[in-house]
Amino acid sequence: MNKPTLYTILSPRLLDLYDLENAVVVIIDVFRATSTIATALFNGAQLVYPVAEVQDCIEKGKALNAITAGERDGKVIEGLQYGNSPAEYPASFIKGKILVLTTTNGTKLLHLALKQGASTVITGSFPNLSAVCNYLIAQNKNVILGCSGWKDRFNIEDTLFAGAVIHRIKSHFTIHCDSSLMAEDMHKLHQTDRIQFIRETTHWHRLQAYGLEKDLEYCVTEDGANIVPVYHPEDKALHPESW
Amino acid sequence: MNKPTLYTILSPRLLDLYDLENAVVVIIDVFRATSTIATALFNGAQLVYPVAEVQDCIEKGKALNAITAGERDGKVIEGLQYGNSPAEYPASFIKGKILVLTTTNGTKLLHLALKQGASTVITGSFPNLSAVCNYLIAQNKNVILGCSGWKDRFNIEDTLFAGAVIHRIKSHFTIHCDSSLMAEDMHKLHQTDRIQFIRETTHWHRLQAYGLEKDLEYCVTEDGANIVPVYHPEDKALHPESW
Repeated sequence: MNKPTLYTILSPRLLDLYDLENAVVVIIDVFRATSTIATALFNGAQLVYPVAEVQDCIEKGKALNAITAGERDGKVIEGLQYGNSPAEYPASFIKGKILVLTTTNGTKLLHLALKQGASTVITGSFPNLSAVCNYLIAQNKNVILGCSGWKDRFNIEDTLFAGAVIHRIKSHFTIHCDSSLMAEDMHKLHQTDRIQFIRETTHWHRLQAYGLEKDLEYCVTEDGANIVPVYHPEDKALHPESW
Repeated sequence: MNKPTLYTILSPRLLDLYDLENAVVVIIDVFRATSTIATALFNGAQLVYPVAEVQDCIEKGKALNAITAGERDGKVIEGLQYGNSPAEYPASFIKGKILVLTTTNGTKLLHLALKQGASTVITGSFPNLSAVCNYLIAQNKNVILGCSGWKDRFNIEDTLFAGAVIHRIKSHFTIHCDSSLMAEDMHKLHQTDRIQFIRETTHWHRLQAYGLEKDLEYCVTEDGANIVPVYHPEDKALHPESW
């Protein structure tokens, strides 16, 4: 029996080169959208609505009596209530609530994937690494690991997460993909110095300026929020699944 | 004094995210366009005309009484005379001649860079690694290392070459670029097993099927053809420079 395929996409600009329709697409935005989504759902948020535009976020927030959140350049967007830090969503605050979130890279890639025909979409980051791996193995479908990058540029942290997934699940898949080969190499090279290594990346320098060092350490630490956020087209929301 | 910047571009699709106008753009297509260009010029070709379209190649070949070359899927294109293998251009054949070349990835990226405003364009691959590094240090200008990839997808071999350049010249540049950080890591990880490692890449599998193993080994071996092919806008040709 042929194993399903696995590909890694290093920038949203490359998404249309791959067949999204017959795959599970994993949206990866380690700093910080998909870390925050996993954390909010793990801590008891009912649903997370990922929206592409600020205006959608405001309107959906009102309609659903939900928490609205989003940042640009490290600051809460005018008109929204909260930011894009996983630390803002402990169980004591988020349990039972609905979150509507817009971000620079992760939610944008998610909507691009849907637009380009993706049928099954989940989100992943280090806080839910094990749950994502368990889910992907169980589906027995092709996999696309979609790195959000930074404004369409390649970034290290999303690549390291893709590599961590590949390292764990590769025996279940057929992989002929240089991006995946590289991602796994980078993961293996930095799995023991990850927190130090990300201090050399461009995103670290960007967010560090906003005082977000603790956030970043949390975002690259494994399994702090082991839930799989699964996108449901019927209500356009991410729902938590235990895996 | 501020050092000039250096960025690495992992796919032609990402080229427009960077300022090409004020930089030296290095076109990289290790398998095999830029390896072949360096080799032909090193072996005495007067000029190499990189052209984007097959029809241009045929017409320019006639007009200049030049050798025409190009492949698609490992075979010489109908209407052209030679292929895209560096082994086809020994001094005994190419010395004093003009070569007009069209390829799937490398010549395409070169023309894209020109179209997007690049003013200084050279080509690089392992056979001319040292000459390229010497040239880039001497210019004291910003550098864009442009990986051609494979039909817009990321590839390992071009990234390894970018990493090899960065490893040698990084002290002369300001580098805030995750692609460059990754490329240098990949270079360091595989500089001693490069020929073995590329046997795991998708391009190797593709070209190996055409019996081109010797070509590929040559293309990832350093300094077999140490010349810098420099693009001259006035005659649209690559001219050899010794560095």
